[in-house]
Amino acid sequence: MTADPDRAAFDRLCGSDPVLTDIRPAGEVVPGFTRDLILTSGAPLPWERYVGGQREAILGAAQFEGLAATRDDAEAKLAAGEIRVAPCHAYGCVGSVAGVYTASMPVFVVENRPFGNVGFCNFYEGDAPRRLNYGCWDDIVRERLEHVHERVAPVVADAVRRSGGIELKPIMRRALNLGDELHSRNTAATMLFERALLPALLDIAAEDRRRVDATVDMLASSDYFFLRLSMAAAKAIADGAHGIDGSAVVTALVIGCEGFAIRVSGLGDRWFTGPHADVEAKLFDGHTADEISWMGGESCITETVGLGGFAQAAAPALQGYQGGSATAMVERNLAMYDICVGENTTFRLPYLDYRGTPTGIDVRKVVATGIRPVIDAGIGGRDGGQIGAGVVRAPMACFTAAAEALDAA
Amino acid sequence: MTADPDRAAFDRLCGSDPVLTDIRPAGEVVPGFTRDLILTSGAPLPWERYVGGQREAILGAAQFEGLAATRDDAEAKLAAGEIRVAPCHAYGCVGSVAGVYTASMPVFVVENRPFGNVGFCNFYEGDAPRRLNYGCWDDIVRERLEHVHERVAPVVADAVRRSGGIELKPIMRRALNLGDELHSRNTAATMLFERALLPALLDIAAEDRRRVDATVDMLASSDYFFLRLSMAAAKAIADGAHGIDGSAVVTALVIGCEGFAIRVSGLGDRWFTGPHADVEAKLFDGHTADEISWMGGESCITETVGLGGFAQAAAPALQGYQGGSATAMVERNLAMYDICVGENTTFRLPYLDYRGTPTGIDVRKVVATGIRPVIDAGIGGRDGGQIGAGVVRAPMACFTAAAEALDAA
Repeated sequence: MTADPDRAAFDRLCGSDPVLTDIRPAGEVVPGFTRDLILTSGAPLPWERYVGGQREAILGAAQFEGLAATRDDAEAKLAAGEIRVAPCHAYGCVGSVAGVYTASMPVFVVENRPFGNVGFCNFYEGDAPRRLNYGCWDDIVRERLEHVHERVAPVVADAVRRSGGIELKPIMRRALNLGDELHSRNTAATMLFERALLPALLDIAAEDRRRVDATVDMLASSDYFFLRLSMAAAKAIADGAHGIDGSAVVTALVIGCEGFAIRVSGLGDRWFTGPHADVEAKLFDGHTADEISWMGGESCITETVGLGGFAQAAAPALQGYQGGSATAMVERNLAMYDICVGENTTFRLPYLDYRGTPTGIDVRKVVATGIRPVIDAGIGGRDGGQIGAGVVRAPMACFTAAAEALDAA
Repeated sequence: MTADPDRAAFDRLCGSDPVLTDIRPAGEVVPGFTRDLILTSGAPLPWERYVGGQREAILGAAQFEGLAATRDDAEAKLAAGEIRVAPCHAYGCVGSVAGVYTASMPVFVVENRPFGNVGFCNFYEGDAPRRLNYGCWDDIVRERLEHVHERVAPVVADAVRRSGGIELKPIMRRALNLGDELHSRNTAATMLFERALLPALLDIAAEDRRRVDATVDMLASSDYFFLRLSMAAAKAIADGAHGIDGSAVVTALVIGCEGFAIRVSGLGDRWFTGPHADVEAKLFDGHTADEISWMGGESCITETVGLGGFAQAAAPALQGYQGGSATAMVERNLAMYDICVGENTTFRLPYLDYRGTPTGIDVRKVVATGIRPVIDAGIGGRDGGQIGAGVVRAPMACFTAAAEALDAA
């Protein structure tokens, strides 16, 4: 064991360097991915325990991929094990909300250069409330996915390759100066990413002007486009800090339909589970709190690396999306320093006079202080679809269980 | 006189709608511009009283335009009246630092649609400290100006025309959510402007790929590109509120080599002068405070319309450029509400829970409270060139003089 395993994990979180190198179908690029596999968010569960929107998303994904002809067919094949379900994190992936991946879906390939590991995330579906990752499946959802996969992803992939890869850390660092916290607000990062691709997009336009239209339209209209890159980068960063013997640093926070779970650097592949998170939500017009439904979510990988709820002070405009006030965001952000190993050496908060974001959640500090991690999150509804956004508090039980396991180890 | 002339001026400041419609040489588009004319910043002065960097900028401009072959030739022709000097504001223009305009210089044409007036501003020269508007003139300065005028301005002009004009207010409103205050920080606005032009730039690239290179390079590397658009928009907005009988609202703040001056809505074309402003500067490495030199500056037109120093709370990252702390910026910003007519109905501050920026400086309130307007500014050096940036306080004498004139009227 190193002298200070938590500091070692923190140093790896800060020393990581995520670079977008490619975009390819999951089945081609994610190690171990097979055609019969569907990934989904959360700690591992047997198929029969997936419920609600998360179950619907998996059933939809099976139909999207052509693994099943109908919902009933998908139910039967999943029950029979002809279609397999596994957690995203077991495959280097990270899922937004239900987080379903199938073999044909294009994924961002993000290499963590200093440590040699790779993180993956699939594409944003667009701004419509009804999306596959929010448990919705119909022809409109299918058409939107096909549009992104056929008309956007190949052009972005081409542009990324022509650019020789895109370094994500400089974009993320700058975005924090431009009002993003890189979980629920990615407006500036999306523009910076577009700017990084621009010379290549102009080259493509010079060859075939119409070919870039769908990509430029999506980049201009979807301020959340970069979220999937922020997630892939955060996954690459967090995995770089995983597996340090004795370290109490959290390397994944996940939401599943049964509850919350965490993974810890020094505790291998074990998941420490708890009940559902608490949430303070701002709901879209026409929706009420009793509709709120948990259908998965791993975008809180961003909080794991010192972003999202750990960088709320960077993003005052977020209050328009998820409620609250700027003052409350700064106060919540400041409280996170009490449960973290240190202050990020790259990601800094201009409103706190460029103090580094609180980074490296220490499960022992969470237990000792009683302060639970703050997570920015989109909120799903019981009938599927996004119904709002809000601030989520991870449950204490996960941290208590992990701290006990560390003591026992 | 209207029942509440200050409210009427405020309503015009908020109700203005600046739209970039064209980019053309000043001599073609600015009413009354003649080939022998050089515009410069500040209240009107006879030629012999222009000194230091502002004088050097005018002499350089004469040579740039080919009105004089050498510095001595320019001196002689200016002394003889063969080359004329006039203040920018008298021609619907607004000058950055020395603010020199000549007939061939391309200018942004910004129409204030509801009120029918037009504001102009010429192009940013780029990030080099030595620039014509900072009183420098040599072959490198000339080449950079020619590069902007020949390779950037015509492409931006083409793109603006193909786009059918660009509405600036939505860009400015959004930029405040993205960390700009639109005077000394224009990073987000520059990206939003680039995005607005993108379909047209792609069209141009499809016709001639290399033609857009210089423009894309400048937009990507010059975070201050949008400043000149912010200034042109602010000029159009401020002029829309000028000339309201009885109004104490400031419609221009200007710096000249002899001192500060203001213009007031209800006091026609009179300028109320005072000494030089106070400044708290952060200087570039290798420079000292005794080098600070006043060579003009009208970019504080942005403060006149509720931006810049009146929106510092939007731009915490500005501390990296001009010093100070986020807390000090918020405090300074809050103090400006005490000297303004109202809170802007479009420009809002996310860190103050979307409170509208303090807008419409009331000279009587400045005198009554003793609170002087805060201005973000670039700082020039005695040998020419930019040597830093800082926060400037307009001198009280201008406001006292204007308040007395209002009482006398």
